[in-house]
Amino acid sequence: MLIEHQGKRPAIDPSAHIAPTAVICGDVTIGPRTHVSYGAVIEAHGAPVRIGAQCVIRENLNIRSTSRNAVEIGDHVLIGPHSSLKGCVIEDECFLATGVRIFQGARVARRTEVRIDGVVHVRSVLPPHSLVPIKWVAVGDPAQLFPPDKHEEIDAILSQMNFPEEVYGLERQSGDGVDMDMKELTRRVTSGLADHRDDEAL
Amino acid sequence: MLIEHQGKRPAIDPSAHIAPTAVICGDVTIGPRTHVSYGAVIEAHGAPVRIGAQCVIRENLNIRSTSRNAVEIGDHVLIGPHSSLKGCVIEDECFLATGVRIFQGARVARRTEVRIDGVVHVRSVLPPHSLVPIKWVAVGDPAQLFPPDKHEEIDAILSQMNFPEEVYGLERQSGDGVDMDMKELTRRVTSGLADHRDDEAL
Amino acid sequence: MLIEHQGKRPAIDPSAHIAPTAVICGDVTIGPRTHVSYGAVIEAHGAPVRIGAQCVIRENLNIRSTSRNAVEIGDHVLIGPHSSLKGCVIEDECFLATGVRIFQGARVARRTEVRIDGVVHVRSVLPPHSLVPIKWVAVGDPAQLFPPDKHEEIDAILSQMNFPEEVYGLERQSGDGVDMDMKELTRRVTSGLADHRDDEAL
Repeated sequence: MLIEHQGKRPAIDPSAHIAPTAVICGDVTIGPRTHVSYGAVIEAHGAPVRIGAQCVIRENLNIRSTSRNAVEIGDHVLIGPHSSLKGCVIEDECFLATGVRIFQGARVARRTEVRIDGVVHVRSVLPPHSLVPIKWVAVGDPAQLFPPDKHEEIDAILSQMNFPEEVYGLERQSGDGVDMDMKELTRRVTSGLADHRDDEAL
Repeated sequence: MLIEHQGKRPAIDPSAHIAPTAVICGDVTIGPRTHVSYGAVIEAHGAPVRIGAQCVIRENLNIRSTSRNAVEIGDHVLIGPHSSLKGCVIEDECFLATGVRIFQGARVARRTEVRIDGVVHVRSVLPPHSLVPIKWVAVGDPAQLFPPDKHEEIDAILSQMNFPEEVYGLERQSGDGVDMDMKELTRRVTSGLADHRDDEAL
Repeated sequence: MLIEHQGKRPAIDPSAHIAPTAVICGDVTIGPRTHVSYGAVIEAHGAPVRIGAQCVIRENLNIRSTSRNAVEIGDHVLIGPHSSLKGCVIEDECFLATGVRIFQGARVARRTEVRIDGVVHVRSVLPPHSLVPIKWVAVGDPAQLFPPDKHEEIDAILSQMNFPEEVYGLERQSGDGVDMDMKELTRRVTSGLADHRDDEAL
């Protein structure tokens, strides 16, 4: 399903293949021979999404830009099913396995492998030829790599990356639990998404 | 796609937005200004699903009630893509990141943050302003938090929560591997779901 | 949505239930009383997919065969939402929880439980009555079980399982980061998938 959003239509190379239940929404460019599988959702909301040549985009994954962060994916990149990429840059010849999560402002340099369920957090930068092990977390610029049990080390770096500011344009709040103003956050996100009412299926 | 199931139709506030490829099935109420993204599946099977005002419900996630456990989600809640919520209560202003899993009988109190791929297990209760780190597991009432390597500690508490009874109404079996009667479990689930044959797309 | 692919049509037992937004593509057999939920994607690409009787196949999951590896799923198996199974064998009465990942050439013997987000890696073999803890990784033949922090131990065994050869028919390359020729890998995969152009919705 191709969708016109914010007055912009997807631009799909004629040699690309888009599965019939995939969704491509808004200012999305998809390059030659790239394959997009069933249930994939690729949305440009504000900034554009650019996907290069001969990429493999697997089932039920989600690729999304935001008003602040474009998505740029190079050539010869494979992204596994159930992955989630938001407002990030993936250079050529990367291998992103099943269930990876890559966040706003992240940059994954060429020939990097992110293994199953690996995470690259907000504003984190992986140099070329990096390897993120299964279910590990890459955080920082340059990124450091941690298994999930190293919560305190991850959190110490993450607090410097300022997730609320990068992702929602909000100041971090102090205190326990959620460190964002959720009323304001959800107000911004839902009102920002309200222009989907004018979408048109192509 | 809105679906009538078990004779009940979704009740969507006129100011809510439901993406065209999202599925809303049965006795589901969705409040004002709430946004439901592409590929999300929200199903009431038996008990109702209630989602409050100004929530953000992201791509390809799954929210589902069961015959025993309703879903109640408060106001100003964000739930990230690829998350899975079953028969649980989420209070106001929670932030549930990408890929979280929350199970039957769990209760997540207000202004709790569950980070990427965090788990809140069966019957587990998180007090207000809790934080579940990336890929950690919350289990128990009140919940204790563990990274994945603490399997033995998790399992010791989990065995008291009685997953087979809470989720499938089955007695726990002894022995290695699966601790449930899978023939009876799959008989109950598939025959319970057989009434989907009478569903009607609206 | 049922799809004819490579000249082959799904064979669905009349007592099975397929949700209207599920995709069943190509040489897929689904047995009596099996339930397939919304957003599930089940594809045979080359080798067949066989799913037995009274299975529960949950939301937004992905089951896929490849040219080298069929999928065989026995009777009375439950597979949770957001799971991903590729070219593997799952014997009778297994319980695969939410978000599990099982890879090409893996064999999961009867009455095995793979808990939330558990991984069974390429060519790995689990004996009957096995248990993979939450977010652990099973790797090797016979499989050994590791939490995610044991990356070095996992990698030592994984390198013997030869992922590039099993999954893509490629030789492993030396060096850091991606250990495969991504130009050749994406050329093979995208040209192999190009026959989806001749698919026909049934």
